Amino acid sequence: MAGNSFGKIFKLTTFGESHGISIGGIIDGCPANIELNIEAIQEEMQRRRPGQSKIVTQRKETDEVRFKSGIFEGKTTGTPIGFEIINTDSKSKDYGHIKDVYRPSHADFTYQKKYGNRDYRGGGRSSARETASRVVGGAIAKQLIPNIKINAYTSAVGSLELIQAYSELDFSTIEKNAVRCPDLKLAEKMEKYIKQIRKEGDTIGGVITCVIQNVPIGLGEPVFDKLHADLGKAMLSINAVKGFEIGSGFEGTKMKGSEHNDLIQSDEKTTSNFSGGVQGGISNGMDIVFKVAFKPVATIMQKQKTINTKNDEVEMKGKGRHDPCVVPRAVPIVEAMAAMVMLDHLLMHRSRENFSFSHT
Amino acid sequence: MAGNSFGKIFKLTTFGESHGISIGGIIDGCPANIELNIEAIQEEMQRRRPGQSKIVTQRKETDEVRFKSGIFEGKTTGTPIGFEIINTDSKSKDYGHIKDVYRPSHADFTYQKKYGNRDYRGGGRSSARETASRVVGGAIAKQLIPNIKINAYTSAVGSLELIQAYSELDFSTIEKNAVRCPDLKLAEKMEKYIKQIRKEGDTIGGVITCVIQNVPIGLGEPVFDKLHADLGKAMLSINAVKGFEIGSGFEGTKMKGSEHNDLIQSDEKTTSNFSGGVQGGISNGMDIVFKVAFKPVATIMQKQKTINTKNDEVEMKGKGRHDPCVVPRAVPIVEAMAAMVMLDHLLMHRSRENFSFSHT
Amino acid sequence: MAGNSFGKIFKLTTFGESHGISIGGIIDGCPANIELNIEAIQEEMQRRRPGQSKIVTQRKETDEVRFKSGIFEGKTTGTPIGFEIINTDSKSKDYGHIKDVYRPSHADFTYQKKYGNRDYRGGGRSSARETASRVVGGAIAKQLIPNIKINAYTSAVGSLELIQAYSELDFSTIEKNAVRCPDLKLAEKMEKYIKQIRKEGDTIGGVITCVIQNVPIGLGEPVFDKLHADLGKAMLSINAVKGFEIGSGFEGTKMKGSEHNDLIQSDEKTTSNFSGGVQGGISNGMDIVFKVAFKPVATIMQKQKTINTKNDEVEMKGKGRHDPCVVPRAVPIVEAMAAMVMLDHLLMHRSRENFSFSHT
Amino acid sequence: MAGNSFGKIFKLTTFGESHGISIGGIIDGCPANIELNIEAIQEEMQRRRPGQSKIVTQRKETDEVRFKSGIFEGKTTGTPIGFEIINTDSKSKDYGHIKDVYRPSHADFTYQKKYGNRDYRGGGRSSARETASRVVGGAIAKQLIPNIKINAYTSAVGSLELIQAYSELDFSTIEKNAVRCPDLKLAEKMEKYIKQIRKEGDTIGGVITCVIQNVPIGLGEPVFDKLHADLGKAMLSINAVKGFEIGSGFEGTKMKGSEHNDLIQSDEKTTSNFSGGVQGGISNGMDIVFKVAFKPVATIMQKQKTINTKNDEVEMKGKGRHDPCVVPRAVPIVEAMAAMVMLDHLLMHRSRENFSFSHT
Repeated sequence: MAGNSFGKIFKLTTFGESHGISIGGIIDGCPANIELNIEAIQEEMQRRRPGQSKIVTQRKETDEVRFKSGIFEGKTTGTPIGFEIINTDSKSKDYGHIKDVYRPSHADFTYQKKYGNRDYRGGGRSSARETASRVVGGAIAKQLIPNIKINAYTSAVGSLELIQAYSELDFSTIEKNAVRCPDLKLAEKMEKYIKQIRKEGDTIGGVITCVIQNVPIGLGEPVFDKLHADLGKAMLSINAVKGFEIGSGFEGTKMKGSEHNDLIQSDEKTTSNFSGGVQGGISNGMDIVFKVAFKPVATIMQKQKTINTKNDEVEMKGKGRHDPCVVPRAVPIVEAMAAMVMLDHLLMHRSRENFSFSHT
Repeated sequence: MAGNSFGKIFKLTTFGESHGISIGGIIDGCPANIELNIEAIQEEMQRRRPGQSKIVTQRKETDEVRFKSGIFEGKTTGTPIGFEIINTDSKSKDYGHIKDVYRPSHADFTYQKKYGNRDYRGGGRSSARETASRVVGGAIAKQLIPNIKINAYTSAVGSLELIQAYSELDFSTIEKNAVRCPDLKLAEKMEKYIKQIRKEGDTIGGVITCVIQNVPIGLGEPVFDKLHADLGKAMLSINAVKGFEIGSGFEGTKMKGSEHNDLIQSDEKTTSNFSGGVQGGISNGMDIVFKVAFKPVATIMQKQKTINTKNDEVEMKGKGRHDPCVVPRAVPIVEAMAAMVMLDHLLMHRSRENFSFSHT
Repeated sequence: MAGNSFGKIFKLTTFGESHGISIGGIIDGCPANIELNIEAIQEEMQRRRPGQSKIVTQRKETDEVRFKSGIFEGKTTGTPIGFEIINTDSKSKDYGHIKDVYRPSHADFTYQKKYGNRDYRGGGRSSARETASRVVGGAIAKQLIPNIKINAYTSAVGSLELIQAYSELDFSTIEKNAVRCPDLKLAEKMEKYIKQIRKEGDTIGGVITCVIQNVPIGLGEPVFDKLHADLGKAMLSINAVKGFEIGSGFEGTKMKGSEHNDLIQSDEKTTSNFSGGVQGGISNGMDIVFKVAFKPVATIMQKQKTINTKNDEVEMKGKGRHDPCVVPRAVPIVEAMAAMVMLDHLLMHRSRENFSFSHT
Repeated sequence: MAGNSFGKIFKLTTFGESHGISIGGIIDGCPANIELNIEAIQEEMQRRRPGQSKIVTQRKETDEVRFKSGIFEGKTTGTPIGFEIINTDSKSKDYGHIKDVYRPSHADFTYQKKYGNRDYRGGGRSSARETASRVVGGAIAKQLIPNIKINAYTSAVGSLELIQAYSELDFSTIEKNAVRCPDLKLAEKMEKYIKQIRKEGDTIGGVITCVIQNVPIGLGEPVFDKLHADLGKAMLSINAVKGFEIGSGFEGTKMKGSEHNDLIQSDEKTTSNFSGGVQGGISNGMDIVFKVAFKPVATIMQKQKTINTKNDEVEMKGKGRHDPCVVPRAVPIVEAMAAMVMLDHLLMHRSRENFSFSHT
């Protein structure tokens, strides 16, 4: 109810503030008797980790995940998987300046008004540091559905946009550059641009595209829990996200049905994929393709007008360590949320799939 | 779990197929002792009703809502509100041609594969007829939050786009034209265009913009059930929706933080509203503004290649009564879903707001 | 949230008041493509129906279930099953006398205080008439798990108690007497006693025992959603229930571990069954056995002291048609709730059972 | 879904095995800006702690709760409260003997069959050690509803039963004896008896009575989430519980309505309280009184026949440190679960209570 759980059967609940002792979570509903690759989980953490490159926040966190339960002799036991990530490099004194001031477009104001108080240090609960726990959940989900391939990548930084369709891209290049853009020339431009933006004490938005391949037909629970509706919610719950589109998205609104319809072939594949892999809220076996819009980070190193907690108008300038562009580090977060949605829907579908009386 | 319930405290569960006996639902969790305006509910139904104008499907349904429970002597009793809408004009014989054929880009294929069978008549459960039940839920929700003003309108039909910001529009004109576009000149063009599209046996997509005004500060339940994430899921669950963006949306990804940040004034209002009324997943008191992308309707009156249930390649042409563009009739549906999200979040917030020991 | 839904995957939501137009519900999450025996559902309704014998309320209701959706050509479609039962014999004028008076030990007082108003006619939503909708859900659940045998029976009416263990009883006799007690001699005594109680204008309590046989091992979701905890909640949610015990129950508290432990044999059966078929919250394959305590019906045909809605002390005497003992009619309700719990847990277990990577 | 979360608005999710690194949980939905008494939480932990007296298990755990989040400068922030309790005295080698053997009436067998593997050390997840996390949740819940007084006590150990009604007891004596029985003479007998049982290498069952006083009228969400149904589920989810009864319970089944009805006085109090404080599933303002039946602990220090994981019949004898009677340590657990149910229902009721249009 209070909003810190995600999923229905495979369910992640998270806790933790940016500058508290630790962050972490509990994964409930993980299938039992599955051998987990702990190193692979840690590798996903490295992809999201601060300090991983020069274009991200320089906070130093190893983000080592400590598992507390639910895994025995290397295998899941079907019981809740508790885990914790210690905050080792919180420099809370960097945040004294926002104790009584609301950063423009940040959650400082809304948290204070909603709850009546707030842990202002590093943004507290509203910090994207929380998403590290999502990456743990996603890394485990990914391992449970190895045949479903989930690849996200940076498709725009500011106005620098990747034009090619995903089918023309080589996903293996994504992790080979700091921006996580599979067009290495464009990636270089993006990296330079982000560095320049940082020099200006500014930030910039961007877009992530996510492609999910080898999806079983039949996932999604209409009429409200449609597969793309749950993917959309998952993405919109990530910090700084302001938009989501699947398949033809907003461009598709300009098309006619005769152009937009994906004709079905005898192998059950469609000749085009404007649907983005989902029809009527249910996966049709084609690749799922969606885009996620990230606004520029609110905390900038420039003076801005705002108010303090007494509603006096004041000027403030950001301090602390922040990302000039969240998109590179958000790529694994998008994948993590997508993986949890896919696994959860797989389990939901599985609960009733091919049900027959002999099951009892 | 199976996806036909929406909301947590104010919860709508729906049933019904397009050509079954009836559709309807149960609203659980409606606050008690509230006088309902039944006529106003019926008026909302008229806004969504088929046959309301020449540019929508000509199926003749009065869509009269019959309430079965939960209302006594004109007031809600806090118990579930059951309701039913009879299907009076179902012409199921019109749909024999799709019994064994999958319409391209429709849910025929995915429903068949997921469930192993399907009610093919008029699209069965996948038909947008189901949304009539949502309008009932939304109409009641609206009455419970009269101070929160929710206005949706058609902002694009195909490439015909409304350029003005919502603040320059007169919402009272929305209901004065068949397209529900508050720019009457553009509305006329849109209407003509839709008529032409229909003549061609084709369909066209469009965009709806929704503005929610006078929103209390503090609604939204981070980190997963953020207000805009729930709004996004609500919209993406509507038939034909392929995209959602709030505030600056995809355009905002091109902006710098110094441009995008909404500066806060001493009256707690912001000088701009790129955030779209939500920061950190919580309403900040500014207008909530979002856009919803609708793809063109899948069923067209032109011949298309597809397969039948034996996977033979065949040609088919749509029959039956369909909308050439869903956007005009989707305006009240967008408002209905928005109203339910806002009320539900209001109730969730209220459950813990200003909690003190004296409450017991 | 508001409490009118039951189950997680197979979920029943109900609506309706005793003297409203109708009662009914929606079953969401029913597995698809299953042939339903509608007559068998109606037969379950007959078992719960008022007026079925001389020892129950004489309200005349055929309780015919009208299905609205979710069933096509005799088979479930996986979409919500909406259904309605018309109230044909509501004599609301019989209830004018309780409009402003609270019947002692009835829900009149608590509903009025909680909701601020109430449909007083026939007890409104608090009437056991609502349980008819549960019987529909249970009848469908039963059909989905035909191998799991669920038998409930009257094991006590007042002080008239059935002493034999269930293994010594012939379940086929349950439906052969009005009381639903499988000891026909005792049944006769019980029937006479109930008739006498009615003559006195009084009511009497009783106990129902339920036996679930052929249960798969492994159902139950510790630590909170233990199988017997969900069974317990299901039973305690039935009108007039004040107690639930499984296996050795309250008697078992007097035993030593060395007496109480169920020794396991090489066939995985236990030599005794004090556990009642559930260990650690999970079914162990032995028969599930539990008892449910029903208090005497509150509405009696004798004068009692109470207060009116102005808090004046008044005297009142029951009118209308009521059961002198709810137990005979509650037998199918207990079975229905048990069936829904068993199916729901089966589906939950199935979602993750024997999960392996090849599932995707 | 997987059963390790409890509550709807105030929701506790727990993790951890008896001999893992730690146990703990996340409390989501705690109202914000509330000053917590951390010492008082720790005091509740002492009441449940092993090694607290000579009649309980001698495992040495300080059960110190470490809070990780959700509390800032002594006050709740409305964000999730993560907490952990380190397992300091796990002697896993004591449990090698049950690695391949199922203890009779324990969860060893059912966990192995359900999940396909299990952490056998100390019972793993099925150990009552998990309930320490519940006490944390309950201790916080208690602090939020200080006016609602919750007192549980041992009312039977084996056949040694407390006869007096709770109104004749002095609750302040409960914590003054190791058994937690408010009749000090009987407590002494019980203590002696438990010691004797332990000497025999045996265990014994018992009963806990719980009294909740000063309850607001109106808590409970019919028809399924009735207050006593949720209390019942909460209690039945505690390890070793086999029965629950409220008010007159099983005894009430022998009564006539004319005896059982609680007559209402002008002050809205009833002359008797056979209802146990709940009518129609909603609190009526009278004391809530219920009893919980605990079976004898399964692990005994005597030889018993059982099978191993290869289904060979073997003999085994318990080792490790166990409670001869769980009832004394279960008293604070019963209170904790009761407190969480009461708070959660208070919040649910509050979400819609006295709703009026002016709320927005």
